[in-house]
Amino acid sequence: MSDSMSAASDPMGAASAEPSTVAELGESATLARILPRLTPGDAALLGVGDDAAVVRAPDGRFVVTTDMMVHGPDFRLAWSTPFELGWKAAATNLTDVAAMGARPTALVVAIAAPPTTPVSLLEGIADGLREGLARLAPGAGVVGGDLSASSVLTIAVTAFGDLDGRAPILRSGARVGDVVAHAGVRGDAARGLRLLFAEGTDASGEPDRELAAALRARHPELIAAQLAPSPPVSAGVAAALAGATAMLDVSDGLARDARRLAEASGVGLDFDAATLGADVRLALAGAEDHGLLATFPPHAALPAEFDAIGRVVEGTGELFVDAAPVAAEGWDPYAGWDGRAG
Amino acid sequence: MSDSMSAASDPMGAASAEPSTVAELGESATLARILPRLTPGDAALLGVGDDAAVVRAPDGRFVVTTDMMVHGPDFRLAWSTPFELGWKAAATNLTDVAAMGARPTALVVAIAAPPTTPVSLLEGIADGLREGLARLAPGAGVVGGDLSASSVLTIAVTAFGDLDGRAPILRSGARVGDVVAHAGVRGDAARGLRLLFAEGTDASGEPDRELAAALRARHPELIAAQLAPSPPVSAGVAAALAGATAMLDVSDGLARDARRLAEASGVGLDFDAATLGADVRLALAGAEDHGLLATFPPHAALPAEFDAIGRVVEGTGELFVDAAPVAAEGWDPYAGWDGRAG
Repeated sequence: MSDSMSAASDPMGAASAEPSTVAELGESATLARILPRLTPGDAALLGVGDDAAVVRAPDGRFVVTTDMMVHGPDFRLAWSTPFELGWKAAATNLTDVAAMGARPTALVVAIAAPPTTPVSLLEGIADGLREGLARLAPGAGVVGGDLSASSVLTIAVTAFGDLDGRAPILRSGARVGDVVAHAGVRGDAARGLRLLFAEGTDASGEPDRELAAALRARHPELIAAQLAPSPPVSAGVAAALAGATAMLDVSDGLARDARRLAEASGVGLDFDAATLGADVRLALAGAEDHGLLATFPPHAALPAEFDAIGRVVEGTGELFVDAAPVAAEGWDPYAGWDGRAG
Repeated sequence: MSDSMSAASDPMGAASAEPSTVAELGESATLARILPRLTPGDAALLGVGDDAAVVRAPDGRFVVTTDMMVHGPDFRLAWSTPFELGWKAAATNLTDVAAMGARPTALVVAIAAPPTTPVSLLEGIADGLREGLARLAPGAGVVGGDLSASSVLTIAVTAFGDLDGRAPILRSGARVGDVVAHAGVRGDAARGLRLLFAEGTDASGEPDRELAAALRARHPELIAAQLAPSPPVSAGVAAALAGATAMLDVSDGLARDARRLAEASGVGLDFDAATLGADVRLALAGAEDHGLLATFPPHAALPAEFDAIGRVVEGTGELFVDAAPVAAEGWDPYAGWDGRAG
């Protein structure tokens, strides 16, 4: 990403004779179209344009997480707009930073795309990254990246955060008697995905752009929860300041992730069924909500984003609903993927 | 990557009845096979196992770079062993950190693999990452990662470094009269790749494992320069301490990368032909050597890894060899890739 941004101000704009795929345009000119859409953010001391970026870490430590989204297993281009892909890539990684009690500061983004990919698709991803950052983590930006060729569109984001002098909130700190609390939607992303599979596919079961658009109009909140989630990123720091004893990002389903927290802490978790909505099983099993599950001391004042949904009990990783044992369920990237490219 | 490492001590070892692909084994058990092969390194305050890692940044800033390697455009499984893939993924990213004058501290690694991928392949990649780090950046380790499903094996590495209180060495600091110097091999990686294409492919032009193995025995240095390079990572800090005015990683060919430095600095670079070996064109055009190109004040004592190969002259990005102008040549990931999976 060493190239100048001069091509972005091409006075010809998007004239029809202009090259429109990354192969036609080439790497340098493609980057020159993408980079002006991104902002490096407040933490960037040196952004795109050299061998590496330099990012502020005032705490003397930094928090880092990485996650890859792959066309087919993780998204379908008939359902997601490029903007939504960029937004979701930012959102999911920011939530992992937030789950440590850290303040997100920056991202780096590596994208591999087929040579036939329209440059406009990459521009859309960049727009989604920028707007997702602006909404969910104001001040954080994109400090670096990489563009590669692949037959499968792949987006790898690595996100950074600063702890501002606090201890990170681990999964292992929950204590018997703590309140179990959750910030964010519960089951909406899974409801959205269920709708997309049920009503957003054509007669042969293939994802369909028109049907998805119609669904989006009828169920905007559920479709957005799946395709462009707005997780409670700022609630991570709020939880840390409120004394959270343990926290994690709920990406694989509340039950599966809650079990991880319970096992790491050497406790059990007992949920109140009344707090989980009408479909308790979906609230427990539905993946990709990207909420924050945290435990707080019994008399802590919960941050506004959090709902109390249960309590920490004696145990070694068990989950309960109203004191009845439940199984963990969730998402394994290699289970049930049929290899279709979406 | 939240799962315990208990499966790694399975007393059955690699018994034949054991699941052998990532799909058969599942995500958790696959990670349990990979993670014990990696070490978090000296900078890790919190490694794999929570939502994010926590890494020391004693300087109050950190250097970060990211790069993706894709099966087909970037490597061929008939030529590269899994160990070599892991080694090269570490080496290339470490060199970008070194090119800032920084000391590499840590990596995060995201891998997307087809469900049919043998777990042993991922173990080999992990072994290569570990040994590449141990050789090229002792003390640095792998602090986090992600495992996804894809039809194309893809390895995304993000690498970090610490500046230890120094200013980063940018591409833009070269001054007229500076010495141009280079650390590392010049053209060997391209010679190795040329050999692989000429003698490592079968009658139909497909990469061939047996032919590549024979080549490896006959030309170990050239094949290693391509498949498992050993770039001069420690020379990056040495250059900074010796007063380097500009530096970059030579990944796309000496001419193409030298032009980037020259343009960023607003100078010309004049190479001494006698220092570039018998095949000057190959030394200038050959990509993937991952050497370090740096400029030093006229009377600086060059670190031992560096050879003087020219001088900085007046200009605006021009390159010369013995004062005769040369064109920039190099590697564009979208130019000339025919989409074959390798």
